[in-house]
Order: sequence, then structure tokens, then C-alpha cells
Amino acid sequence: MATIKDIAAYCDVAVSTVSRVMNNHPDVSEDTRSKVLAAARKLHYVPNNSARDLAASQTDAVGLVVRGAENPFFTRIIRSIERSCADAGCTMVLHQIPVGADEIERAATLVQSKRLRGLILLGGRYDYTSEEVSSLRVPYVCCTYTNHFGDLSRESFSSVSINDKAEAYRATKYLIDHGHQRIAVLLDSIHDRSISERRYKGYCEALADANIALDEHLVFETGEFSMEAAYKRCSEYLSSKQDFTAIFAVADSMAIAAMKALSDAGLAVPHDCSIIAIDGIEMSLYTVPTLTTLVQPQSTLGEEAVRILRDVLSGATTSGHIRLETTLRAGGTVGHAH
Amino acid sequence: MATIKDIAAYCDVAVSTVSRVMNNHPDVSEDTRSKVLAAARKLHYVPNNSARDLAASQTDAVGLVVRGAENPFFTRIIRSIERSCADAGCTMVLHQIPVGADEIERAATLVQSKRLRGLILLGGRYDYTSEEVSSLRVPYVCCTYTNHFGDLSRESFSSVSINDKAEAYRATKYLIDHGHQRIAVLLDSIHDRSISERRYKGYCEALADANIALDEHLVFETGEFSMEAAYKRCSEYLSSKQDFTAIFAVADSMAIAAMKALSDAGLAVPHDCSIIAIDGIEMSLYTVPTLTTLVQPQSTLGEEAVRILRDVLSGATTSGHIRLETTLRAGGTVGHAH
Repeated sequence: MATIKDIAAYCDVAVSTVSRVMNNHPDVSEDTRSKVLAAARKLHYVPNNSARDLAASQTDAVGLVVRGAENPFFTRIIRSIERSCADAGCTMVLHQIPVGADEIERAATLVQSKRLRGLILLGGRYDYTSEEVSSLRVPYVCCTYTNHFGDLSRESFSSVSINDKAEAYRATKYLIDHGHQRIAVLLDSIHDRSISERRYKGYCEALADANIALDEHLVFETGEFSMEAAYKRCSEYLSSKQDFTAIFAVADSMAIAAMKALSDAGLAVPHDCSIIAIDGIEMSLYTVPTLTTLVQPQSTLGEEAVRILRDVLSGATTSGHIRLETTLRAGGTVGHAH
Repeated sequence: MATIKDIAAYCDVAVSTVSRVMNNHPDVSEDTRSKVLAAARKLHYVPNNSARDLAASQTDAVGLVVRGAENPFFTRIIRSIERSCADAGCTMVLHQIPVGADEIERAATLVQSKRLRGLILLGGRYDYTSEEVSSLRVPYVCCTYTNHFGDLSRESFSSVSINDKAEAYRATKYLIDHGHQRIAVLLDSIHDRSISERRYKGYCEALADANIALDEHLVFETGEFSMEAAYKRCSEYLSSKQDFTAIFAVADSMAIAAMKALSDAGLAVPHDCSIIAIDGIEMSLYTVPTLTTLVQPQSTLGEEAVRILRDVLSGATTSGHIRLETTLRAGGTVGHAH
């Protein structure tokens, strides 16, 4: 079995450099990190003697990699995953990364350095390729998303998610059913190969099915997934005009930011503008008026992710896919168009 | 060095029972758990061979025990602790427990089962005794609180916190300076031996210094630290009368729930009632109006906790205490009494 020295020799770098990569230190260049990790995989490196002992006796640690830890939608899911892990007697190692970071590369490093048996990825990309996920080397569950834009076979990975397109369709149709025709959509980017792109598709289809022409001016892209960006984007638009009667926001947090922007522009919800979202975070119960939203089963998303991972780790199954549904919570933010 | 069999023999229980306790399984009675852990301490048990190897080579794992994971105030602090740990190349093992649970007992079990080198306790009790914390056996940092009601010597533990009483005094005085005399306080319990009791003291002192008599009817105890309880308590009171012109809430989340209760009772903030809180969570920027609050330096609270723990673990110091200050963010929820 290869040692850290073998990898250093193979890559022509210092042993201490390999050590830094294996311990996930930040002060290593991306080139070096990739080279070292590739060599570690190629040489079938397992971190150290203790790790080999632990592997033999099956360490119980699973990793939870959260992309976008600022997202309040993840709070309840993380808690649910942590509890389910504790109930199952396994350790959860939490690793939070920014929205822009590559969760697969970070997860692969984490698996090696922390000797993880499995992974739950929360809030990741929808476009993994088989090649890139091969670096993970342990079973993983995509939580809150699936591989819609990627090339993975269903048997090769697991997922727990809602049907983004169908739920966005439902939210948009709810506004249309209330008489709205000029409906803005608030999202990160229509080309994010992720949640926004999928939900945008549902929005477009609902409009098309109701014979409402898509107006690109009403597609509010924020460029990043944050309340601050959502607030800015809405405020900018409203500073010139308001030519829409409703907003579909792809997330509760964005909807709450939009409500603030509407209020700051002197507009009342729902009288001047209706708003609906998807998520159902606790805070959305306390907005004025209460946010109308499609509530995701947050605890179940976390519990099912852990259950599937345990089933895969125990050999009971090789993969699992769960598609959950949302529940409409009619608050006070959607009124009839007038 | 003692083995799991020694402990089983010492306690007269099955080896599998000792194993379950060490792995933090839920299906062990509290009596048995206590007995096994006491024996493990007495016999100087270290979990297994791998663990001993790791101990020799210094495992890098620190535990983060979060009491009250629902609290949105913790989100940014957890992220900051996680990032600081990652930057330092050490693993963070997250363990979330309900507000009612005993974080010391849980942390002690975690230290043993996960071979932790140190601990950060987030949102814990203010009344530890030297006897109970002796079970932890590793350095720990109290994050967001200190040992105000306990008997620990300053040298025996570490803490990063704000001065709860002084900050509550400041918040209350801010309302008094705006002409308010009938000021309600919204908190968990005035006898919680924790954050609410300390902040209640500051509220009382500010009233006393302004020669305002304390009216016990205006002390809104919720019985538990949650938005739901805060909303209910305020709504119940408002259903009979509103004989106050301002509220000091001990936390942003409670203030947001109170704003919802005021709105549902047909009252406008700040026209009919002013409100101020302590915390500065992201969501409080998006309430209508923006919440006036004393912003805690959330990232710094987390960073300093990790820094102190590292200093203690490296032997550079034996303990550390940091007292941080808040920053007043004047939103739109405090107006002049009229």
C-alpha cells in the first residue's frame, strides 16, 4: 500500500505538501492539490496506519458537505441529518463550502483525509459526470437535488429531492389561477444548470400552457443566491417601474427579500403585488403577511438521505432515489389580480 | 490500559452494552450509560487500538456541541467555527442537541466516543459546576456565554461572549431615551440561569436607573426559546389589551415573532409599539420595518472560540476569555413615544 512518501516521490513534491493536501489545508495551489489527489487515487493511498486499522474495523463517520451554508433552507435539513446520524450511532463530519466552490473535489479530499464511509451532499450541482464523481470512492446521496443535467446512471448514485420543474409549475399556475398574467420570476440564473434553471423551466411551461407570452424583462436574475442580491435586483427594477402584478421566487429567502424591496418601493403585498415561493422555512411564517409558499418536507429530506446512505453502506441496496412532494401553505401574499 | 472488556467486567454489564455507550447509541438506559462512563474514566479507557494510535499522533478532531439548533442566531457562528477549523486543518464534529438536553453529559460522551481533543460549546448553560465539567476531560470553550452562575475558576475554562446584562441595559435605555416608560420585555424565563435571566437583569437596572417602576405584567415569559412561543405569548396578551408602548426582546427571532403578533393584532410598528432586540441575524434586515437591534459580532464569536481552543491545545495558554461588544443598528422599529 502506498505511503505519503510514495506520493511525494511520484509527484515530485515535498512530503509536507502531500500532508497538507491530505489534511485539507488551504495553503496549497489548486494544481498541486489536483496532482497529489490524482496520484493518491492512482496509487491506492489510504491516509495512515491508524486509518487502515479503522478501515478494517469500519469507521462510522459520514461526511455532510453543505454548499451555501448561508441558506436558511438548509438549517432544518442539517439538523435532521445530524439527528438521524446520531440515532444510527454514526459520526457526522460537517464541511460547509461557499456556493461557488466545487463540492465534489472538496468531498473527495474530505473522504480521504477523514476516512469517511459515505457522504451526503447538500445543495450541490445538478450536472455531475461519471468521471468526476469517481474521485469520491464512497457511496453518496445528493440531498435536495438530483443529476438532471449530468450523465450518471441511476444505479450509480442516490438522491432525495423534490421535482423542481413540477413544483415551480404549480407555484406559477397558482398565480395564474388568481388572475395574474404579468408574473415576474426571481432566481439566481436561468443557466445555472441547477435549481434555478429547473424551476425556471416550470415557470415557462406554466405560462405557455396558459397562453401567456414570456416577457424576458420579468425574468429577474440575481447572479447569486442570496437575500442581498434578491433585494437589490428587485429594488433596481422597481426604481423605474412596476409592470407586473405577481412574483414567483424560487426560494423563501429570496421572496422575503423581494417583499422588503416592494415595501421600500411603497408597494403593498398582496394588494399591489402577489408573491409565492418554494421552501417553507420557519421565518416565512412570520413575514407580514405570512408568505404563501410550497413547503418542502425538510425533516424528511434529511431523514431519507441518511436512511438511503445506511441502506447502501449495509449492502441492502446499491442506490436509492426518493422524490418528495411539497405542500401548499396558503399565507397572505397571493391575492386576485385586479 | 483498560479495554472494553475490563469496563464490562467492572460494571457487570455485557461488552456490547459498553460498546453501545461508547458509540453514543440511544438505546442504553441513563443509569447504565452513567455507570459505564464513570468506569471508563476511572479505568482511563481510550476507545480502541486505532484510537490509541491516533492519540499518539494527535488526532485533530474538535467537537462542536450546539444546544438549540433551531436558533437562527447560531447559523453564522457555526459557519465561522467550521471555516476556522478547516483553515486550521482540524476536523469539526458537529453534534446538535435540543435546548432542554444536558450539553455537558452529551459532550463528555462525544469526547470519549469520537476521541476529540477539544470542544466548543455553543448556547450552553451559565451554571456549570467544577464537578460536572470534570467529566469533559479536554479543553473547552463556551461560545456566546460564560459561567456567570457557576463555580468555575476563570483559569479552568474559556469563553467568548458579550456582556448580556450591559447590552440589555443598553437596549432598554435606548427605548427609554425615546420617551418610552411602559416597556415590555420578551424572554424565555427570568429564572433560566442563562441568557434570559442575565438580560432581564439589565432590563430591570435600566428601568430602575430611570426611576421607572417594574410592572410584572409586562414581563412576557415564553417558557421556551422559540419563535412560536414568543408569537403565542404576545398574541395572548394583546388579545385583552395593549398597555405598553415598546418591547425589548432578548433575541431577534423573538422580536420578529412579536412583530408578527403586533401586526395580527392590528398594531403598527413603530407607530403603536416600538421594538428592539439583540443579535443581528441576517433575516432582521428584511423585516418591515427593518429591526432595530444590537448586532453581535457573529463571525468573530466563532473565530475567537476556535483561536482560543487552538491556543489552549497548543499549550500557549491554559485558558482565555473574550468579551465582545455589540453594534447598534438603528432600523425602523423604534419611534418616539407619543
